[in-house]
Amino acid sequence: MSISRQKKLRLGAFFNPTGHHVASWRHPDAQADAGINVAHYMELARTAERAKFDMIFLADNIAVRAGKMESLSRSAQYIANFEPITLLSALSAVTERIGLVATASTSYHEPYHVARKFASLDHLSHGRAGWNLVTSGLGTEAPNFGRDTHYGHAERYRRAHDFARVVTGLWDSWDDDAFVRNKETGLFFRPDGLHELNHRSEHFSVKGPLNVPRSPQGWPVVVMAGGSDDMMEVAADFGEAIFCAPLSLAAGKTFYATIKARAAARGRSPDSMKIMPGLSPVVGRTEQEAREKNDFLNSLIHPDVAVGMMSMILGGMDLSGYDLDGPFPTDLPATSEASQYVYESAIALARKESLSLRQLALRMSGARGKSVVVGTPASIADMMEEWLVAEAADGFNIMPSHLPGGLDDFVELVVPELRARGLFRTEYEGRTLRENLGLARPASRYAPAPGDRRGLTAE
Amino acid sequence: MSISRQKKLRLGAFFNPTGHHVASWRHPDAQADAGINVAHYMELARTAERAKFDMIFLADNIAVRAGKMESLSRSAQYIANFEPITLLSALSAVTERIGLVATASTSYHEPYHVARKFASLDHLSHGRAGWNLVTSGLGTEAPNFGRDTHYGHAERYRRAHDFARVVTGLWDSWDDDAFVRNKETGLFFRPDGLHELNHRSEHFSVKGPLNVPRSPQGWPVVVMAGGSDDMMEVAADFGEAIFCAPLSLAAGKTFYATIKARAAARGRSPDSMKIMPGLSPVVGRTEQEAREKNDFLNSLIHPDVAVGMMSMILGGMDLSGYDLDGPFPTDLPATSEASQYVYESAIALARKESLSLRQLALRMSGARGKSVVVGTPASIADMMEEWLVAEAADGFNIMPSHLPGGLDDFVELVVPELRARGLFRTEYEGRTLRENLGLARPASRYAPAPGDRRGLTAE
Repeated sequence: MSISRQKKLRLGAFFNPTGHHVASWRHPDAQADAGINVAHYMELARTAERAKFDMIFLADNIAVRAGKMESLSRSAQYIANFEPITLLSALSAVTERIGLVATASTSYHEPYHVARKFASLDHLSHGRAGWNLVTSGLGTEAPNFGRDTHYGHAERYRRAHDFARVVTGLWDSWDDDAFVRNKETGLFFRPDGLHELNHRSEHFSVKGPLNVPRSPQGWPVVVMAGGSDDMMEVAADFGEAIFCAPLSLAAGKTFYATIKARAAARGRSPDSMKIMPGLSPVVGRTEQEAREKNDFLNSLIHPDVAVGMMSMILGGMDLSGYDLDGPFPTDLPATSEASQYVYESAIALARKESLSLRQLALRMSGARGKSVVVGTPASIADMMEEWLVAEAADGFNIMPSHLPGGLDDFVELVVPELRARGLFRTEYEGRTLRENLGLARPASRYAPAPGDRRGLTAE
Repeated sequence: MSISRQKKLRLGAFFNPTGHHVASWRHPDAQADAGINVAHYMELARTAERAKFDMIFLADNIAVRAGKMESLSRSAQYIANFEPITLLSALSAVTERIGLVATASTSYHEPYHVARKFASLDHLSHGRAGWNLVTSGLGTEAPNFGRDTHYGHAERYRRAHDFARVVTGLWDSWDDDAFVRNKETGLFFRPDGLHELNHRSEHFSVKGPLNVPRSPQGWPVVVMAGGSDDMMEVAADFGEAIFCAPLSLAAGKTFYATIKARAAARGRSPDSMKIMPGLSPVVGRTEQEAREKNDFLNSLIHPDVAVGMMSMILGGMDLSGYDLDGPFPTDLPATSEASQYVYESAIALARKESLSLRQLALRMSGARGKSVVVGTPASIADMMEEWLVAEAADGFNIMPSHLPGGLDDFVELVVPELRARGLFRTEYEGRTLRENLGLARPASRYAPAPGDRRGLTAE
C-alpha cells in the first residue's frame, strides 16, 4: 500500500493503572499497586515519549464502581487510584513533548473548575494539555454529589454541550496579548484584553472571567469519547480528537464518515477532528507467541470478574441469574447509564457469533469493550494501516493489555514496523499537542477579524 | 533566651507568584510572569526544601478579584495564575521532603472532589499534602458558580464545618490495609476494608466511598486560615496548622491561647495544632539596608493599587470617594465577605496610630494585612524567638516580599541565625509533612480500638 507523506498515524497511550486487560494486575510483571504508584506512571510516560506518542490518555470516574462484592474485590479497575489531573500535572514535570489528556465528566463538575484545571495544566506543560469531555457513565457517581439518581442519557449530553460552551468561553477570557506586565509603566494587563463571559442558560450561570491567562494552545485540545447520536451532536461542535470503539472495519468507516460529516455541517474542516479508535494490541514475535500471551492473560480472569466488568460496560445491566454457559440475553434493554454505542456493538457481536454469556463476557471484559488485536508486529501494522487507508481511523488510542510490558512490546516491536512503512513519526513535529496532532490553534472569540489577528492563529 | 531542645520553629514558605508585596511584580529582579511560570516555582520549591522549610503554602481564589480597572490592571495578585493543586502536583515531582499545602475553598467546591484531589496529591508526594480549608473571601466567586450572592459569614462556616466532616470521612473510606493485591488468590482488596460514608446533612449528601486508597498521612494535614469566632469553631475540630495574622505580640498570645483552649475543649492535645502567623520579612545586613529595601518596594506601589488592595483585604469595602490624605473611615461597617479578624485589626491599627487612608493603605497593602518585619537577621530572629517563647506562635508562614530575592535573603541570612540559636532544624525529622510538623497520623474512624490498631497510629 502507498501512503501519502502527510498521512501519518496519531497515537495515544491509554494508561489504565495495571493495563487495559481486566486481569492485568495479576500478571507476574504487573505493578499491582500501579493506581497509586507515581514512579510507575513516570516510567510509562517516558517510554511513550521516547516512542513519540502524541499523548498519554487517562480515563476517570468519580466513584467506586458498583458491583457484587465477589467481583468488585477481585478487580483493580475503577476502584481506587490517582485523580488523573493531579497525576498528569506531576507527569508534566518529567516529560517535555508528549500530550497529557485527562478525562473530566461534565455531569458532576462545575465548568469553572474544569476550565481552570486544564488551562493550568496547559500552562504547566507549555501547551500539552487535553480535556477528554465525557458524561458520567457510572450510576454510583450521582450519590457522591447530592443526587439520588443519575441524569438520563439525552439530558446529560445537553448538559455536556452547554458545559463545553462555558469552558471554551472561559478559556477566551483573556486575549493572548492581554498581559503586558510593564514594570516601568506599572500596567500589568490591558483592560480591553479582559472579557467577562456572562453565560446564563438552563444548566449554568457563569459570569467569568477565568482567573488563568489564555493558555499556550488557546484551548487545550478537546477530546471526546463514545459514539452515540447525542455524543456526536456535541462532538460536531467541540470534538477535536475522538476516542471510539468500533468493533469492525465497516463500523469504523461508518462512524468516521458520519461524525466528520456532522462536523462539516457545522462548517468545520474534516482535518479539525482526528478519529482515534481504542486498540488493545497483544504483540508476539510470532502469531503463536501472541496467542499464548493473550491466552495467559485470559486465564487470569475470574468468571465473576468477567460478568461484573461486562455489566459495568453495559451501564450497570443486571446479569445475575443468567446461566454463564447459556446464550447471552440479547433482548435486555439498555440501562440509562449505558453507552448506547457500546451496548449495541455488544448485542450485535453476541448475535452474530451466537456467543454464550461466558464467551461474550470473556471477549468483552478482557479488553473491556474495545478492539483487541492479537498478532505479530506485521499483522498489527497491517490492521492499523488498513484502517488509516480506509478512512476508519486517523490513528489509535493504544491500550496496552498490561503495563509496562504491553507498552514495551508495542514500542519495541510495532512502532519500528509502523516507521518502516512511513506511517509514524520519528520526531515530534511541534512543541504543543495541537501542533503534533495537526490541529489549528483556535482564535479567541473576541479576536479581531482574520487578517488582523495579531498572531492568534497557528504558526 | 533558653529554648528547650524540643521547641523549634515550624516554617512555611508562602508563595504569592511574584512575592507578597503588592508591588513585587515591578521589582527589577521579579519574574513578572511568575503566575504561569513553572520553572520559577520549581526554583522556589527547591530553595525552600534546601533550607528545610516544613511546607510550601499556596493561596487560592476562584475568580478574578473585583476592583476598579485603574487599580486592577496594575495588580498581579488574585488576577490570573496557576490553579494551586495542579501546580503542587508538578512540584511534587521535583521535590522529596517539603510539604505541599494548597488552599481550596469550601464555599464553591464539592467535598468529594476536594477529598479526592488532596488524597491523590498525598499519594503523589508520598505523604506531603496539606489542605488549607477556607471559606471564600471574594464576592466575585459566587457568580462563577451559579449564585447571585455570596454566602454570609456564619453560613459559610457552617458549610465549611460540614464540608470538613465529609472530606475527612471520605479519607477514611478504605482501611490502611484494605488493598491486599494478592496475585495468587486474585483478591485485590478485602471487602471489610471498604466503608461507605452515607453522609446526609443540611449542606451535603455524599454516599462514598472515595475512589482513592487511604493516603500515606491517613488524612492530608488540615491547615486553616483566619481568626474569627466562626473559623475557630471549625478549627477546634479540624485545624492542625493555623495560618493567622495577629498584628501584635499581645494579639498573637491571645489568639494562640484562645484557639488552643477551644481545641482542648474538644479533647485535643495543644500539640495537635500548630499556630503559624504570617510573617513578611524584609531582610538587610544592616537595619539601614533593610529599610532601604522596604522603602524601595513601597515606592513601587501606585496609590490606586494600595486603596484597591485594601478594599479587597476588607472584603470589598467601597473606599472610593474618601480623601486619600484624610483620616481612615473607621466607622464603615464590615462587608459580609470580610474576614472579621482582619477587618477589626485594621480598624484598631488606624485608630491607634491615627492613620490617613493613604497611610493605612500603604501599610496594609504592602504586606496585604500581614505582619511585616524589616530588619537584620538578628532582629528578625529576635522577634520570631520572642513569639515562640511567649507562646504566640509555633512557627511562621514566611511571606517573602518579592521572589525569588526575598526568599533567598531569608534563607541565606535569617535561617542560619535561627539555627545558631537552636530554633530551626538542620535536617528533616521525617518523610511526611505530619512527621515534620510533629502531628500524629490520625487513625481511621473505622479502626479497632487503641491497643489493636494494626499500625494505624504514628510511629
